[in-house]
Amino acid sequence: MQTNLKSATQEVIIGPDLPTVIIGERINPTGRKVFSAELQAGDLSRVASDALAQVEAGAAVLDVNVGAAGVDEVKLLPEAVRIVQDTVEVPISIDSSNPQALAAALKVCQGRPLINSVTGERERLAKVLPIVAEYGAAVIGLCMDDTGIPETAEQRLAVAEKILEAAHALGIATEDILFDPLAMTVGANHMAVQTTIMTARLIREKLGANLTAGASNASHGMPDRELLNTVFLAGFIQAGVNAPICNPLKNVLAVRAIDLMLARDEWGTNYIQTYRKLQKMQAQAT
Amino acid sequence: MQTNLKSATQEVIIGPDLPTVIIGERINPTGRKVFSAELQAGDLSRVASDALAQVEAGAAVLDVNVGAAGVDEVKLLPEAVRIVQDTVEVPISIDSSNPQALAAALKVCQGRPLINSVTGERERLAKVLPIVAEYGAAVIGLCMDDTGIPETAEQRLAVAEKILEAAHALGIATEDILFDPLAMTVGANHMAVQTTIMTARLIREKLGANLTAGASNASHGMPDRELLNTVFLAGFIQAGVNAPICNPLKNVLAVRAIDLMLARDEWGTNYIQTYRKLQKMQAQAT
Repeated sequence: MQTNLKSATQEVIIGPDLPTVIIGERINPTGRKVFSAELQAGDLSRVASDALAQVEAGAAVLDVNVGAAGVDEVKLLPEAVRIVQDTVEVPISIDSSNPQALAAALKVCQGRPLINSVTGERERLAKVLPIVAEYGAAVIGLCMDDTGIPETAEQRLAVAEKILEAAHALGIATEDILFDPLAMTVGANHMAVQTTIMTARLIREKLGANLTAGASNASHGMPDRELLNTVFLAGFIQAGVNAPICNPLKNVLAVRAIDLMLARDEWGTNYIQTYRKLQKMQAQAT
Repeated sequence: MQTNLKSATQEVIIGPDLPTVIIGERINPTGRKVFSAELQAGDLSRVASDALAQVEAGAAVLDVNVGAAGVDEVKLLPEAVRIVQDTVEVPISIDSSNPQALAAALKVCQGRPLINSVTGERERLAKVLPIVAEYGAAVIGLCMDDTGIPETAEQRLAVAEKILEAAHALGIATEDILFDPLAMTVGANHMAVQTTIMTARLIREKLGANLTAGASNASHGMPDRELLNTVFLAGFIQAGVNAPICNPLKNVLAVRAIDLMLARDEWGTNYIQTYRKLQKMQAQAT
């Protein structure tokens, strides 16, 4: 099962046993005060440099989210998408909880983007999936619904099945969906990461679908988050998450090391090339 | 299935779903020129400090190997074991390819040590297993035999079964053996780590046995070995390796992070305590 994303010039294929695809998470105001303030002032000047840095570090897809409080996403999201595709060549993940903003951004987005995201919530299914179908996009399906985030892997699988059923009814295929098993903070619940892993395994096994996950959520509030993110990414990717959303500037070498472990990197070429590129970038920065 | 190791005062239990047991690898001349030269001169002065540092960092068992070229292990190994048990309280893994040295060390070793190691080689089985049985010790079973190191996981499982059969014939139970699926250098063969992982899974599934692995072997010759060791340990431990042989001074926080991921660390207590202890040790060192 392969999920294809496209920009005007590039195609990215997500599939089991293929090298892991990094979706760069940085163009997002969450936890970034300066960027939030800039977005609130309508200033998108940081978007181009964030796009460049992430692609240089190894992101194959870029998530674009401008949803700071008070921002008119219907206006700003398409502008941000335009800047990203004027700056880099990679496919885009259009990230908003506002369906109008998604539609506006899809209108200007070239190729075949990813929509981030739909959930199993009745209203989200009804509003987001028709847009996905209309534009022939791919979509992230979060394993939560109107009752919230289910506690067990089996319940999250059931939400994934509900999303899948609604998608199929609109002609959206299983390979058009990246399911997100939801990585929750392990600091609040020591079962959290294991539940995410078990959900990913179940979805891969039962639905055959490809998967994404916001790995860094799991380490929130814990010390040495970079080590935790490396370890959790190893667990998630091994469980079937083949397009994690993460910070390539911090996590790219870990992802390449995980691919090496999983025999997805013949001769270790990707790992060694990434290592050398990072050494070079570091040398240039100092 | 639980494997018990004992010193004079402590018991260490290795079992599925229990916190991962770190076997400290440092008391070993392999790759340590100064220590090799000291051993060749009969100087064991480094053994006590190496023992202390590893236990302070989080080793629950200490491997003791004095096998530098030209060393009389029959004389030196018991002396090293005595120093370790005079210095720290943890159980010992007696590490030698010389059966006479193993027997001599067992005579002075208190509690219930681990013998490192037997293989599926006819001669090793014949010489090492009777000693293990006589002293009621536990033993590491390396998945290699007279034909060398098998290429596939299925063949390594077959070697494990051969070791198990020979052990059972002498009254050594499955829980007295830690199987080593053999971690080979990924730089020489990009399938190497995946084969180790598949072997571990097979042995856990078919034999129910506990497992060890020398994780750092896998990263030999590659850049950023510490990152690779973290990632490979995540793969190995997830596959069932619950008593890895590694360097606690470098790997302990990664192992605690992996246990946190695998829901073997309620409230993250072990992870956070280990993090704080390492911060303190670092502060004291500077």
